Amino acid sequence: MKEFLKTISYSEYEKLLENLNLKRERIIVRSEISANFVVAENIKATEEVPGFFRSTVDGYAVKYENTQGSTPSVPTMLKLIGEIKMGELPDFRLNDGEAAKISTGGALPEGADAVIMQEDTEEMGEWVEIYKSLGFGENTVKKDEDYALDDIIVGKGDVLSASKIQALLSSGIYEIPVFKKLRIAVISTGDEIIDYKVSKRGKGKIRDTNSYLISEYLRKIGEEVTFLGISKDSREELKSFVEKSINDFDLFLISGGSSMGARDITVDVLSDYSEILFHGIRVYPGKPLIFGKGDDKVFVGLPGHPVSSFVSIFTIVYPLIFSWEGAKDFKIKPSGYLKIDKNISKKVGRESFVLVKKYEKNGEFFANPLFGESGLISLIAEASGFVRISENREGAYAGEELWYYEF
Amino acid sequence: MKEFLKTISYSEYEKLLENLNLKRERIIVRSEISANFVVAENIKATEEVPGFFRSTVDGYAVKYENTQGSTPSVPTMLKLIGEIKMGELPDFRLNDGEAAKISTGGALPEGADAVIMQEDTEEMGEWVEIYKSLGFGENTVKKDEDYALDDIIVGKGDVLSASKIQALLSSGIYEIPVFKKLRIAVISTGDEIIDYKVSKRGKGKIRDTNSYLISEYLRKIGEEVTFLGISKDSREELKSFVEKSINDFDLFLISGGSSMGARDITVDVLSDYSEILFHGIRVYPGKPLIFGKGDDKVFVGLPGHPVSSFVSIFTIVYPLIFSWEGAKDFKIKPSGYLKIDKNISKKVGRESFVLVKKYEKNGEFFANPLFGESGLISLIAEASGFVRISENREGAYAGEELWYYEF
Repeated sequence: MKEFLKTISYSEYEKLLENLNLKRERIIVRSEISANFVVAENIKATEEVPGFFRSTVDGYAVKYENTQGSTPSVPTMLKLIGEIKMGELPDFRLNDGEAAKISTGGALPEGADAVIMQEDTEEMGEWVEIYKSLGFGENTVKKDEDYALDDIIVGKGDVLSASKIQALLSSGIYEIPVFKKLRIAVISTGDEIIDYKVSKRGKGKIRDTNSYLISEYLRKIGEEVTFLGISKDSREELKSFVEKSINDFDLFLISGGSSMGARDITVDVLSDYSEILFHGIRVYPGKPLIFGKGDDKVFVGLPGHPVSSFVSIFTIVYPLIFSWEGAKDFKIKPSGYLKIDKNISKKVGRESFVLVKKYEKNGEFFANPLFGESGLISLIAEASGFVRISENREGAYAGEELWYYEF
Repeated sequence: MKEFLKTISYSEYEKLLENLNLKRERIIVRSEISANFVVAENIKATEEVPGFFRSTVDGYAVKYENTQGSTPSVPTMLKLIGEIKMGELPDFRLNDGEAAKISTGGALPEGADAVIMQEDTEEMGEWVEIYKSLGFGENTVKKDEDYALDDIIVGKGDVLSASKIQALLSSGIYEIPVFKKLRIAVISTGDEIIDYKVSKRGKGKIRDTNSYLISEYLRKIGEEVTFLGISKDSREELKSFVEKSINDFDLFLISGGSSMGARDITVDVLSDYSEILFHGIRVYPGKPLIFGKGDDKVFVGLPGHPVSSFVSIFTIVYPLIFSWEGAKDFKIKPSGYLKIDKNISKKVGRESFVLVKKYEKNGEFFANPLFGESGLISLIAEASGFVRISENREGAYAGEELWYYEF
């Protein structure tokens, strides 16, 4: 059995990603389908948004100066000169002493600079009584309040989300330069591993569901994933899997068998295509990880243990993908803090990511750490996320608040 | 303008959902594509998982009793009787005084009941020196440790996730009874609203991106959504949109125009098809919400304000969909706690959901509330989630920890 000769810490791994220096091509995609892509350059507004001077309430467009000193007992009377239709710019100008009826979202007429809410007025035939003083611009949105021309809507390195895309579409931006997505291949290995679809499992065999879970969680972040199949623990077979497809993919994820031999074989084969940057990472779980860098390619040998495999997707593979695809913020970030409800002990020197189940009790949410020898797949199925404890700590106490990462 | 005659609180809304009593058909779907479906009955394991007595380490299978009292200075000598191949059940039996070489994940031979780690041994030709005492079952996983026969893998009312599906597939369960997904239609309304794809926006017009965002966030939870188009603020036109498609959908989401007239028209049209259960909900944002229930159909008039529209997807539409589709846990749940970095004030009597941007500072994460008159679409694009303040409070102070919901 080979030693884990070159292990690194989690923070060293994050630094390594910063300096991997792998390039991605720029492509243009339609904004509508650009979710999860990383923006390749700053995108500026080409239209003002909302685009016209709008009311945020139902009421009357006025000049704010005309309302000064108005109260219910000493109202100001303004002449009602018209009603503004939705979706049109008014074709009249508002002068001193005048008001125009307007709905939420309507365009203010030229000359108007504020809107008085309907409940602060009383309409009386051709006149409107004003019961309140307004400030300049009150109850309105400026024509470029969301975006002025040349405002940056999304910046280089931003990961596109539906809500960022909404902003692009609002400004009439239908195409966007992004970095090309990776082509990702998954290979499972292990003499004990069989296709999960077989009807009879056979003795001593394990259905390969790690590759399913890896693929699904990569699809969640918009990746295209191709499953190449299951290789026996054989140097020749694994090599032939990689060799056949070497030009078709950028990232190869080798989902490990659990035996000692399997890891050696993976290291051997990956050495033919890449420089092994590390073999073993000082994290829990996920230690027996193999990372090789070739010419514009990366090979990751993932642990075979289901929990390690699953957690490594978040801790190892997501940051790799996001950094490679150009995201300026590629590190995993917690989705909030949660208190743990029992002690967690760990080894000093290993960044730890512990599966937990979030639950509510008396109106508060807690994280219940799931560990022990009690099952593997079942723990994953039960977990809602994981908490993190930094490498230099010996553990964390019940009641302590930790970074929580929801799946 | 019609009054908001029948408004309800957020907790009343959650109660209303519990009692809506809308049924969904059961269907059978392939497990692989069952993500986001709600399980229609308890699903029990039909195979034991992992299925055989496995080692969790690389080492030697032994009888634990044979190791008692072993230390490096007083080792026990066991006879090496063979090596266990991965993916096969050993064809030999282990007797007192014997050991068999085994890899992580390998099957223990009959007679063995524990595994000693390689580093606690020394192999010497036909013998293995044992340097440590083991407990019964140490470094092993029982054949039904993940799932015993008839263990419930997923329960009625569980929402399926990729990790729960992994557990099903591990046990060889390829089909699963679930509740049928809703057929959802989205209609945009408003005289000022135009298709976001038009090249020239026109004066006083607003590109309709709310319907885009609504649809995308429903697709995230696995829903199929059909956009029916944009209706003018006209009773006849909106009615014809609904009428044409009334039999094709279960849930109609009417994305509101912002004018006073628009809401009245929506209420009018929905009254033709449903009983208006409430008109106005005491939440911020999202107050002008209309909720109508017909025969096995629901009609929701969503606010036109982009932030209200967006937040209502999470606070109103997600719980409706999950409860209707049979989820036992349909209420939205925070993804953790975050401290806010400035005060938030609010009206008593309204459950408030305030957009925030999560950020890191000196190794801690905070939520920066995004409010004020400063833009709408741009706030959504900047936000990472929202925090929640309960209805009876007047606000929350900077530094306070709140429930945080990440998008």
